[in-house]
Amino acid sequence: MNYKIIKNIIGWVLVIEAAFMAPACLVAVLYREREGFVVLACALLCLLCGWLLSRKKPEDQSMYAKEGFVAVAFCWIVLSAFGALPFVLAGAIPSYIDALFETVSGFTTTGSSILPEVEPIPHCLLFWRSFTHWIGGMGVLVFLMALLPLAGGTNMYLMKAESPGPSVGKLVPKVKATAGLLYKMYLVLSIAQMVFLLIGGMPLFDALTTMFGTAGTGGFGVRNDSIGGYSVYLQVVVTVFMILFGVNFNAYYFIACRRPKEALKMSEVRVYLGVILAAIVLITINVSGMFRSVPEAFQQAAFQVSSIITTTGFATTDFNIWPTFSKTILVLLMFIGACAGSTGGGLKVSRIIILFKSITKELDVAVHPRHVRKVKMDGRTVEHNVIRSVNVFFALYIAVFAISVLLISIDNFDFTTNFTAVAATINNIGPGLEMVGPTSNFAAFSDFSKLVLTFDMLAGRLELFPVLVLFTRKTWAK
Amino acid sequence: MNYKIIKNIIGWVLVIEAAFMAPACLVAVLYREREGFVVLACALLCLLCGWLLSRKKPEDQSMYAKEGFVAVAFCWIVLSAFGALPFVLAGAIPSYIDALFETVSGFTTTGSSILPEVEPIPHCLLFWRSFTHWIGGMGVLVFLMALLPLAGGTNMYLMKAESPGPSVGKLVPKVKATAGLLYKMYLVLSIAQMVFLLIGGMPLFDALTTMFGTAGTGGFGVRNDSIGGYSVYLQVVVTVFMILFGVNFNAYYFIACRRPKEALKMSEVRVYLGVILAAIVLITINVSGMFRSVPEAFQQAAFQVSSIITTTGFATTDFNIWPTFSKTILVLLMFIGACAGSTGGGLKVSRIIILFKSITKELDVAVHPRHVRKVKMDGRTVEHNVIRSVNVFFALYIAVFAISVLLISIDNFDFTTNFTAVAATINNIGPGLEMVGPTSNFAAFSDFSKLVLTFDMLAGRLELFPVLVLFTRKTWAK
Repeated sequence: MNYKIIKNIIGWVLVIEAAFMAPACLVAVLYREREGFVVLACALLCLLCGWLLSRKKPEDQSMYAKEGFVAVAFCWIVLSAFGALPFVLAGAIPSYIDALFETVSGFTTTGSSILPEVEPIPHCLLFWRSFTHWIGGMGVLVFLMALLPLAGGTNMYLMKAESPGPSVGKLVPKVKATAGLLYKMYLVLSIAQMVFLLIGGMPLFDALTTMFGTAGTGGFGVRNDSIGGYSVYLQVVVTVFMILFGVNFNAYYFIACRRPKEALKMSEVRVYLGVILAAIVLITINVSGMFRSVPEAFQQAAFQVSSIITTTGFATTDFNIWPTFSKTILVLLMFIGACAGSTGGGLKVSRIIILFKSITKELDVAVHPRHVRKVKMDGRTVEHNVIRSVNVFFALYIAVFAISVLLISIDNFDFTTNFTAVAATINNIGPGLEMVGPTSNFAAFSDFSKLVLTFDMLAGRLELFPVLVLFTRKTWAK
Repeated sequence: MNYKIIKNIIGWVLVIEAAFMAPACLVAVLYREREGFVVLACALLCLLCGWLLSRKKPEDQSMYAKEGFVAVAFCWIVLSAFGALPFVLAGAIPSYIDALFETVSGFTTTGSSILPEVEPIPHCLLFWRSFTHWIGGMGVLVFLMALLPLAGGTNMYLMKAESPGPSVGKLVPKVKATAGLLYKMYLVLSIAQMVFLLIGGMPLFDALTTMFGTAGTGGFGVRNDSIGGYSVYLQVVVTVFMILFGVNFNAYYFIACRRPKEALKMSEVRVYLGVILAAIVLITINVSGMFRSVPEAFQQAAFQVSSIITTTGFATTDFNIWPTFSKTILVLLMFIGACAGSTGGGLKVSRIIILFKSITKELDVAVHPRHVRKVKMDGRTVEHNVIRSVNVFFALYIAVFAISVLLISIDNFDFTTNFTAVAATINNIGPGLEMVGPTSNFAAFSDFSKLVLTFDMLAGRLELFPVLVLFTRKTWAK
């Protein structure tokens, strides 16, 4: 294991985090909040630690799969560990474990909260809290495109990034170009949403933080009632942009290259939009009696469906009181998640497609054992090792899920609460049902359960492997 | 599709069913119950229909994978459709859908019931109800060993039966020999349990039906309180035999061949016993405060754990009021299920082992992409296609599970009820939690939901493929 390069990378991540804390200090100045000094102190601490760790450039720059995974996992842990400090030191969240939960929830773009009320929290901390979503959203793209290609194991991520081998120097320009392009799209969409929100009369602070939550598919709000208190126009804007941020960014790449037809041909995008539409229609029919009119039911259904499938987690109504059929649809959407290559979480639509295709293939093979049949997607054959890793990923995902539900059941809350709490965190959504429903929060869980759920948020966001290889013997063997 | 041979096989199954109804008529004579005439009439109807269908021996005896699956699925459907008639015609279960649910629950050795009380039901019908468990338990072995090897797709079933190709004539002697051996073991164990139950003073009728429920890992009882009213000795006997019937019958084959060491070396058996022990210990600690003494808590935990993991479904206490931790353990055991090659249901321990091994392999490959690593079990390499079909089976299983939960949620019962109702039926267990807990039943569900759960029982018992290929286009294509 090349520990030096991992140390170096972590150092750089801390330096970047210090820079990310600066805007929160600016917010403190604008709102004349004393908590800004705490944020500033934390930023300086990040800078100092980052400088100490990254000062020496490691001579051996080789990175293999192992180092890639370990670096990614530790970067996210360190990022969250330092990011939690402002909340604790400013006294907004006295318990460090609570603050860690909240910060991991921010960076992993989950949006689950242990805060019963957000409105009493100072603006600079609320800004930092929401800003972590935006960083996490773009960070996933950084890590996927800029760091993980070093790892050589990118096929698991369904993003057909080339595997350029172990040398760092050679590939940086190309990865940088791709990452740069993705950031441009992310920025353009973010600004577009800001404009639409401001046109609707949303205050600048709310518009910024709401945009952060939408763009990162995070879901932290700055109002106690999430998005419920804003106008219908604003809710519709948020709905549309949640859906847009859940689309595979490759589609925007096609559109940017003036090949919009290819974007529409992507089966992942079509299935994603089809599932959204079907869920909205079914829920609208199911809940229409609970609203004044069918259009209102449709708008509310559309918001909640988009919020859950994109794993954002904003809410405009308490869907915990909806009929079980609608709630079950939402729970299933939690697992499907957004498109691969978006900022959203969950299993990802493309994985679901591959799983379904491998099922139908296996059924056909069972009936006609001598037929040779390949799984195809978008006209191309899906390689065996991709199918295998999707299948194993799924098994691993269910295993982590089941063990988590068992571990948090020690707190003796009801099964639905536990099941949806794990679903909401491992899929990076935010709210679940019952005690962790949209009008409630995660404060009641024990510290142990909070740590389990924190682990789930990280494991879910990093697509399990980087976090879980930390627990295998081979990773640490010489 | 060779429809003629399928018709012929279904005919023979009906003839056999008529023979199986005969003992129930005998019970009616002993208890002087008029309902015996109804059972007799049903038996004659089975005989007539069976004779009509099997009268003509098909000239073309060729059976391929397709015919195997379709034949197995239809045999079970027809068996249940006719088996339900005595309940309806005798007036014990007025609704045909309810009777079908109850009969499928019997044959698939599930044990889920729509009856609020069983004690008012006449003895001959109670006997038939429990007897279906015993038939279902041995039937699975018949179908696995005698019919499915024709299908050529046996690797999915994890039973290393040879694939003898399409011709019927050639292989029957060998399959018959294997099936005969399995039946001997099944019979020996059944008789042994009867003896132990009778020694404990259980009435003959109760001992017979309890044995049927245990041997088939079914779970229908003849008392309203299931096994709760019997002595501790009898509960312990049932506990031990439930565990024994959940063991892979290959282990008994080794013991019968005087090679007991090989039976103990089977990793499936070791994991199975290990999981049982761990679950008992954890639950005993968790519920010890609810019982008068730790040994009593241990005995109750042991009964419930054995009943659930072997997918029997007997109960001696209302585990629905246990702490969530214990309940969650039981829910997880529902999915693990018994050993492959036993009469139990669930995912099967060997599948869980292969899933876990393929996960650790994938994690190792992620860390060391160039290493070649094989999945081994009991010293032998597990073939790629076995791993693949286990993985796809798992995905298919979760898909059927999720869709079933969604469909029955239309009834608007709570999520835990729906989740565990599907878990209890697709894994062929019997009781779930909340509204389908051990002191409750499935009567409250709508007819639609009952049909969905009936489908799940069949799909679970036949390991998904035979039932699901009925829905693929390729099966019916010329």
